[in-house]
Amino acid sequence: MTRAQLIEQIHRKKSYLCVGLDTDLTKIPKHLLSLPDPVFEFNRQIIDATHEYCIAYKPNLAFYEALGAKGWESLEKTIDYIPKDIFTIADAKRGDIGNTSSLYAKAFFEQMKFDAITVAPYMGEDSVKPFLEFKDKWVIVLAHTSNPGSADFQLMQSVKGGALYEEVIAKSQAWGTPDNLMFVVGATRADKIAGIRALAPHHFFLVPGVGAQGGDLAQVSAAGLTRECGLIVNSSRAIIYSSSGIDFAQAASTAAREVQQEMKALLEKYSAIGN
Amino acid sequence: MTRAQLIEQIHRKKSYLCVGLDTDLTKIPKHLLSLPDPVFEFNRQIIDATHEYCIAYKPNLAFYEALGAKGWESLEKTIDYIPKDIFTIADAKRGDIGNTSSLYAKAFFEQMKFDAITVAPYMGEDSVKPFLEFKDKWVIVLAHTSNPGSADFQLMQSVKGGALYEEVIAKSQAWGTPDNLMFVVGATRADKIAGIRALAPHHFFLVPGVGAQGGDLAQVSAAGLTRECGLIVNSSRAIIYSSSGIDFAQAASTAAREVQQEMKALLEKYSAIGN
Repeated sequence: MTRAQLIEQIHRKKSYLCVGLDTDLTKIPKHLLSLPDPVFEFNRQIIDATHEYCIAYKPNLAFYEALGAKGWESLEKTIDYIPKDIFTIADAKRGDIGNTSSLYAKAFFEQMKFDAITVAPYMGEDSVKPFLEFKDKWVIVLAHTSNPGSADFQLMQSVKGGALYEEVIAKSQAWGTPDNLMFVVGATRADKIAGIRALAPHHFFLVPGVGAQGGDLAQVSAAGLTRECGLIVNSSRAIIYSSSGIDFAQAASTAAREVQQEMKALLEKYSAIGN
Repeated sequence: MTRAQLIEQIHRKKSYLCVGLDTDLTKIPKHLLSLPDPVFEFNRQIIDATHEYCIAYKPNLAFYEALGAKGWESLEKTIDYIPKDIFTIADAKRGDIGNTSSLYAKAFFEQMKFDAITVAPYMGEDSVKPFLEFKDKWVIVLAHTSNPGSADFQLMQSVKGGALYEEVIAKSQAWGTPDNLMFVVGATRADKIAGIRALAPHHFFLVPGVGAQGGDLAQVSAAGLTRECGLIVNSSRAIIYSSSGIDFAQAASTAAREVQQEMKALLEKYSAIGN
């Protein structure tokens, strides 16, 4: 998907919501468990119920790998099922030596047809660049994550000035462009988002941590929205597990619509995407 | 596998060789491609041919994920096939927020029964610790990797003194012990290994980069061997693709035996494992 197509979708839906498909057999409604592929059936109903209100879906690979080959099949069916105008993110946090990153890129971009993948930057340029060599595909580099442990290394101050996450943002901008590179910036770091926006004024940020992790959508949006939106805000548990009953899809739809309505108001308030 | 079992195996085989199962359909002998599961058949024959000379196998997950659900099945069959006294490493380089890392840990330690997994430290403590909560299972944290991009962030100097990779080694030693935590240290960084050994005198190091990537076994061993060996040195391409013909398994056996003989001499030279 191109940047223009992504922005067009945001404009059309008045939403920058990504729904995280962290589908867990221990959390999905019990009545689905007797079906041949409960994970796909859950995802299918969630997608049907939320696709009007979100512009992206983000399966976290761990939830599928935990089920082995069968989980992988559920993931492949899910990606095939998502409407083609919606942005798809493999939340995989991969990153390896060059020839290995190339293989991961083929797995996620060619075999699975994801639009984007999250990548961990620890191994540097040759671990990230192979993902940037695919037309209309995106790399989303971990910069400042939403978890408590992000303080351990990402905030390490360099003798050259700045923290590790700032160095990651600065260096990786030389590897990609705003047309194929985004950054992960946790919503729980709202105080940092304005500073990060100054470092990367034109790049989209994928913002996890709203909802169950405690991030605040209004704060994130005030600090991070641009004239082309520039944000994709993810919510997983707060939407997909909104109800554990037979009404789970309806409840997810209501929850997604509430977030979309808040986003519509924020896009207008900050004159984002030309509103 | 416990540390004592690992060291006993090293002592018995006079080897600290890990064979990397980076099994690639474009590189394995053509006569295997007509079989129902060429990846597993290749691995099976490589394991039969090399298991006397190595103490560990390390499948790199990218090679299996590139094949989708079928690749995942080949991997599961491979792990089941490896003799139970041999150490198995999932070269997965995972790392995510706590609840997600827990799922990855279950996938690799319980579903797949690997002994160890490689983990990227960028997201800090809560991304690493869930992997350390499994009895007799191991976490191998990326410290100083073998690829050119390792210089981009791993060598970043902290205002507190030391490089990022040194900070990773220092901090993560508080999360695990020499009985469940190892570090990845690239063989192409032989000049750094003595310094890293001083930082972590009792931990095993997994050392990739010997062979195709150019690292030198004698230099690595001089700098890194301890009285309990303390090294697992990986070779992938130089062993498994030693021949592309019908004799590939015999050639792999010969290549693995040559490395094992060199390791036997090095264990004696440096009085490692009580020789």
